[in-house]
Amino acid sequence: MPTETLSTFQLESGAELHGVPVQYRTWGQLNERRDNAVVVCHALTGSADATQWWGDLLGSGRAFDPEDDFVICLNAPGSPYGSVSPITENPATGAPYGADFPRVTIRDTVRLHRRVLTERLGVRSVRLAAGGSMGGMQVLEWAFEEKENGAPLVQALAPVAVGGRHAPWQIGCSEAQRQAIYADPRWQDGRYAPGEGPTQGLAAARMMAMISYRSYDSYRERFGRDRMTPDPATAAAPSTSDAAPPPERQNGEAAAPLPTENAPFAVESYLRHQGEKLIDRFDARCYVALTRQMDSHDVARGRGAYDEVLRSIEQPAFVVSIDSDALYPPAEQRELVDHLPNAQLDVLSSPHGHDAFLIETETLSKRLRDWRRV
Amino acid sequence: MPTETLSTFQLESGAELHGVPVQYRTWGQLNERRDNAVVVCHALTGSADATQWWGDLLGSGRAFDPEDDFVICLNAPGSPYGSVSPITENPATGAPYGADFPRVTIRDTVRLHRRVLTERLGVRSVRLAAGGSMGGMQVLEWAFEEKENGAPLVQALAPVAVGGRHAPWQIGCSEAQRQAIYADPRWQDGRYAPGEGPTQGLAAARMMAMISYRSYDSYRERFGRDRMTPDPATAAAPSTSDAAPPPERQNGEAAAPLPTENAPFAVESYLRHQGEKLIDRFDARCYVALTRQMDSHDVARGRGAYDEVLRSIEQPAFVVSIDSDALYPPAEQRELVDHLPNAQLDVLSSPHGHDAFLIETETLSKRLRDWRRV
Repeated sequence: MPTETLSTFQLESGAELHGVPVQYRTWGQLNERRDNAVVVCHALTGSADATQWWGDLLGSGRAFDPEDDFVICLNAPGSPYGSVSPITENPATGAPYGADFPRVTIRDTVRLHRRVLTERLGVRSVRLAAGGSMGGMQVLEWAFEEKENGAPLVQALAPVAVGGRHAPWQIGCSEAQRQAIYADPRWQDGRYAPGEGPTQGLAAARMMAMISYRSYDSYRERFGRDRMTPDPATAAAPSTSDAAPPPERQNGEAAAPLPTENAPFAVESYLRHQGEKLIDRFDARCYVALTRQMDSHDVARGRGAYDEVLRSIEQPAFVVSIDSDALYPPAEQRELVDHLPNAQLDVLSSPHGHDAFLIETETLSKRLRDWRRV
Repeated sequence: MPTETLSTFQLESGAELHGVPVQYRTWGQLNERRDNAVVVCHALTGSADATQWWGDLLGSGRAFDPEDDFVICLNAPGSPYGSVSPITENPATGAPYGADFPRVTIRDTVRLHRRVLTERLGVRSVRLAAGGSMGGMQVLEWAFEEKENGAPLVQALAPVAVGGRHAPWQIGCSEAQRQAIYADPRWQDGRYAPGEGPTQGLAAARMMAMISYRSYDSYRERFGRDRMTPDPATAAAPSTSDAAPPPERQNGEAAAPLPTENAPFAVESYLRHQGEKLIDRFDARCYVALTRQMDSHDVARGRGAYDEVLRSIEQPAFVVSIDSDALYPPAEQRELVDHLPNAQLDVLSSPHGHDAFLIETETLSKRLRDWRRV
């Protein structure tokens, strides 16, 4: 995937980054008027390759149509997938930023992406910014970006499964996850060498996150109280690190017999497996940096009273709510729609909780496409 | 508090414990017919001293009235508060059980407590078993205890904020918390010396638990996006261990100014403080043992189909549901009431989530008292 490198970029905190890489991917062509851009924003563990997580929304006749749209997805700073982050080189030292990576806000991410978009890719106007969860936070910040003449740079917004500011419940989830990382001795205040990070703490953090991303009902439906087939090794002494994919449910209402009592529950194995999967593809410092970035999300910070700031967002907005979302609950999207002067609420009914924005993608694509056509 | 020590006790797993202490506390007197006992069951981090957590339910004119009831609360095995647990002495070795403490089920707890109740305290019949969360699991297991003549030992049940079996969502929460403990190097597979346990992992686990015990709305109301007053030391380099009690909210809708951006959010400080508080009074092995015990909860295990097992519980039951409970959601109590043939559902409306069973105690006492009088 291509990367643009900005020579300098000043963060909200005042810290200045030099030689700042931003990785991105595009689909389709910028038109002559340079006004057909669609910015797609990724979530916490996503990358600029939107085909990996929103592929169903991308394509001919879909929500983002490369035959007509110039679709761009840019990797967020702090993410391990190509943009500036704790694992990229700090030009001042020649070594990765590591623990010295500065605090980045959602607003920083959008301003950085905006520079790549306008200065490097030549975009003059953005038709739509769309994204879920952390991506949705960026969407709401994109609303405030202006052209040189003061008009909005972005003409329409599609925030999904998100609110206008990170709530204390969400910050609490973030912080408990960070504390699990900090409890791992390999954290070393973030000063660990490549490949020697706090993988066990990161796995525990991911397990916590996975619970908040799904719903009580979806876990019940999928796992019940099934246990893994007893393995002599793990049955003898329950391991703290065994990981295996979950079995298909078979026994329905039948109770598990006593002899398997020491075998892990299917849901435990599933969560351990999810933890193991993430540590293979993510860095703990990046996880801390991005969750802190999400905690910074507050469209009102420095702009005035929250309700009034929302009322100042005049673009048409398609606000998607997931009825089973326990982490970014429907009340947050109703609040957005109550205050955004030109918004439509779309409720996605799904048992999958917050993760539905990555699961119910066919439905999401159709509805967003139809909204764009109106 | 008094302790009775049983010479032997066999667990469901087949393991046999010797010299088994059970700590308890009583209020009121056993009557001549020995049938006025009320068993009150504590939750995960509670003790046999019910005045510490359900004091409002205990007293003259309250739900449990020592002028008429012989109220008994027994400490659960696995808990650090006086009954047999990882921190009590294993007579076979003369040292604490530590990592060798065997797997205990909710059913084991109830059978152990039953022996103390009938063999040592001389109780012939129990008027009521009541408890919330883990205590409620015990209440449902008490339903199956019988007198020598086959009649139920317990005449009425009051399970609060609980279901008939631990659901995968709840097991997942438990397991993610255990993994945070395991990520702490001081865990040592549970083989740590007294005072050298994985306090940081236990604190992270407690923080996760505290999130699940409350609700999105209660956190929002209490903390908003307030930050702690910036402290030069912590503002310069965000600490991973600073803990302080939360401030009272002051600024309502006003956005926090940028200069405090590195100060911790009030909700972070609150959670860290909760983590710190628990490590002063709890042992990590006990936490693991008790969460595993809760995961064992399934009234149907070995007894038949779940629905039918619930239908076999004929005692009058007062099932209390908390409308904002995200951990043991109202659907679980509705399920109980749908199947228990003689049950009444009582919905406690509260913003406090699962913890409401420890907060809305005046209301709970009144309603339970009134139900007992009918």
